Amino acid sequence: MAIQKPTLPKGTRDFGPADVQKRKYILNTIETVFKKYGFMPLETPTMENLTTLEGKYGEEGDKLLFRILDSGDFLKSLKEYNDKMLSDESQDATFLPSYTGKLNDLDAKTTTKFIAEKGLRYDLTVPFARYVVMNRNEITFPFKRYQMQPVWRADRPQKGRYREFWQCDADVVGSDSLLNELDLIQIYAEAFTKLGFNNYEIKINNRKVLAGIAEVVKSIDVMNTIAVAIDKLDKIGEDGVSKELTEQGFTQTELNTLFDIITIKGENQTILNQLKDKLQTSTAGLKGIEELAFILASNPNPNIHLTLDFSLARGLSYYTGCIFEVVSNDGTLKSSIGGGGRYDNLTGIFGLSNVSGVGISFGLDRIYDVMDELKLFPEQLRTTSTQVLFCHFDEASQQYCLPAAKALRDKGIATEIYPDVVKKKAIAKQLDYANALQIPFAVIVGETEVEQDIFNLKNLVTGEQKAVTLTELIGTFVSA
Amino acid sequence: MAIQKPTLPKGTRDFGPADVQKRKYILNTIETVFKKYGFMPLETPTMENLTTLEGKYGEEGDKLLFRILDSGDFLKSLKEYNDKMLSDESQDATFLPSYTGKLNDLDAKTTTKFIAEKGLRYDLTVPFARYVVMNRNEITFPFKRYQMQPVWRADRPQKGRYREFWQCDADVVGSDSLLNELDLIQIYAEAFTKLGFNNYEIKINNRKVLAGIAEVVKSIDVMNTIAVAIDKLDKIGEDGVSKELTEQGFTQTELNTLFDIITIKGENQTILNQLKDKLQTSTAGLKGIEELAFILASNPNPNIHLTLDFSLARGLSYYTGCIFEVVSNDGTLKSSIGGGGRYDNLTGIFGLSNVSGVGISFGLDRIYDVMDELKLFPEQLRTTSTQVLFCHFDEASQQYCLPAAKALRDKGIATEIYPDVVKKKAIAKQLDYANALQIPFAVIVGETEVEQDIFNLKNLVTGEQKAVTLTELIGTFVSA
Repeated sequence: MAIQKPTLPKGTRDFGPADVQKRKYILNTIETVFKKYGFMPLETPTMENLTTLEGKYGEEGDKLLFRILDSGDFLKSLKEYNDKMLSDESQDATFLPSYTGKLNDLDAKTTTKFIAEKGLRYDLTVPFARYVVMNRNEITFPFKRYQMQPVWRADRPQKGRYREFWQCDADVVGSDSLLNELDLIQIYAEAFTKLGFNNYEIKINNRKVLAGIAEVVKSIDVMNTIAVAIDKLDKIGEDGVSKELTEQGFTQTELNTLFDIITIKGENQTILNQLKDKLQTSTAGLKGIEELAFILASNPNPNIHLTLDFSLARGLSYYTGCIFEVVSNDGTLKSSIGGGGRYDNLTGIFGLSNVSGVGISFGLDRIYDVMDELKLFPEQLRTTSTQVLFCHFDEASQQYCLPAAKALRDKGIATEIYPDVVKKKAIAKQLDYANALQIPFAVIVGETEVEQDIFNLKNLVTGEQKAVTLTELIGTFVSA
Repeated sequence: MAIQKPTLPKGTRDFGPADVQKRKYILNTIETVFKKYGFMPLETPTMENLTTLEGKYGEEGDKLLFRILDSGDFLKSLKEYNDKMLSDESQDATFLPSYTGKLNDLDAKTTTKFIAEKGLRYDLTVPFARYVVMNRNEITFPFKRYQMQPVWRADRPQKGRYREFWQCDADVVGSDSLLNELDLIQIYAEAFTKLGFNNYEIKINNRKVLAGIAEVVKSIDVMNTIAVAIDKLDKIGEDGVSKELTEQGFTQTELNTLFDIITIKGENQTILNQLKDKLQTSTAGLKGIEELAFILASNPNPNIHLTLDFSLARGLSYYTGCIFEVVSNDGTLKSSIGGGGRYDNLTGIFGLSNVSGVGISFGLDRIYDVMDELKLFPEQLRTTSTQVLFCHFDEASQQYCLPAAKALRDKGIATEIYPDVVKKKAIAKQLDYANALQIPFAVIVGETEVEQDIFNLKNLVTGEQKAVTLTELIGTFVSA
């Protein structure tokens, strides 16, 4: 076989030992917090049926789904349909117009339906909803689950955007209590604080407030139009938003009312009071304000500052109550590192109505990129777990290391014996290995050590070196 | 949109909280052992280019690859080729004979090349080889990596066989020392012992011994034929193997010699001595025996019993030295729960020659199934991490719980407040929740407790109940 120069699919990455250690540090930190708040783990398959995925992420989402070619003779059902189309009896207006059985008549969208029935997980929310519906009789509600798994999107890769990336979600379904929102806020604060972020903001808004704003500005029907436009406020500014809404038929007076509301400044309580004044004619709006007020008043942690942001809309239209976004304000990557909100009917599409839920998501890859730039990873995070490397000069001294290494390992100390017998510059080469992997201790053994039944223990950080017995060697690590 | 009854793709599974906890218990146990022996983590992408995967797992493997449909207009290059085929100038004999541009002329194999360039990871070994080749200049050799990730095969699902399953691999590349084999054996023994297996066998053989057997029986060229046949000895018996080899042209004398060797019984040392006698004319055979003898003699752990099994062949042909297989002999599922071996040229296909390596694999799903049947999971493995559930009667008593729950969480105690205010049979309903999730403690708070600033702590295992202050409440868990 010809030799191939191997490559990776675009938008995907390998994670070598140092990367994995950092990623696990983030995952473990978040997971520990999830568990402390009573969330339980769920894992769903990488592949889902396309009937589960399609139509859930909008038209754009459908385009970004990775589809899996059916196994075996995947052309079979397409050919069968082809034959049916070409036979006189059958006419299917929904198929391809003036289809002649030629390959060139086919288009990708029509063909896909016949040759792919599975796709890769696109997010963790839809599989979660599917799981809840399929297992509704076994689940104890309220059901608090966390899920940390990769998802795939056929997006154009660019800095900070990958085709395979990880989400870390926590959701509660089967409870409409705002205590869940409060818990999720504590989780955000605790996780980001533990990870070393000290300049981040938890923004909060409520879809009912957005409905109220729409009602007061124009009519409740334009909520989504307003939401989509003001979501871009950060990027395109007031002028951009005004332009977009003017094109959608908003008058200058309506725009004035809108900006008047979403730019209210001041302390949270002051802001809410002003908003209450402005939305007094909207039942939905007042309900949203009441929910926000409850959360602000009940927050048990005075160190958590919540930023009310009425321009926060979050794209996904299934949110119906509180919405969150966490933004890191440090570094060049001022970016969204988490988001979520309450939805009232996520499982409805799969046949289970009236199950309210609320959830948040952490974006592992985004968080990693920010932490890497801000150097937030702890210094003691090492590539290898190995504490001790046994170095030797020949077969005999190597064999002498075996029981000692076993004794250390029996005490739980991560230990390696350099596996090969090195003929030239033996110790230098073995210490190079230890240094490259940042192994903190070496045990050097030659003829003298074997004869005297001792070990030469070298601290590779300080350079300190001393002869010790096996008992002393073990004692160095076990007492430490 | 119509309501869909959701389903899972066949051969895939959801893992609910209890399943994930058990799977993580296995993964963590194996990972801890990998790390103790100096192995470092690697993660590779779910998708690999098909050029990386195809041709590496035999013809059967190519059929079992899950292929990903190219994004966008995936028919474009197929149509371009179609046009080229139909134009007068071009003729490609390797394409489809008498191709007329009709859909029905196409076959799946030809079509695949044009519409899919990526596939799902099929094992962890090929991606590892690819990684080593792509990163050879940054890697410190010997490189000891572990990798625990799912793989996908479009196999017919059946009991114990899934289309998505996890492998846990540890490999050393860049060292031909047998100390690596020794370490991998210790890892197997330590991991399976920690997991509670007490009736398992580590079988060991050497491909060079198989070469020697072939040489002595007939000729070294028939090694693979013999290997493939005797690999099935367990399933089809001596008669079956004889039949298969007779059909391949083996004489009765040759078969007698073969069975004479692979059925040698006795203590390991006795077996090796007898084998040495029988293979004395084969250089390869004697080298294989020497390697096995070294491993048996150097094994530092007297509790590890290795079973010499000269019928052990392991299907994959890239093995060149020692081969291992771990078999669980308990339960109805007497099955292979791990395997591995040494390969001398795994990275050669990607352009990096002469890198010897040796590796082992744990099959998570198989191990899970056996442990589940043998009830080897520790009893204290709980579905939720929650230690305390706060139960209440109304909004006021629920609010009273907030600072107390925060105080417990601040001490690292996993805590929940029942999020909803329950109007009827409030405490019964909340305790049902606690019991369903096996939460060990409930704190019950009503008007009296709020008034007296105390908490009613109930041990849900013993039923014991007492009134405590917040300090006492915290003390119960932190001192425990």
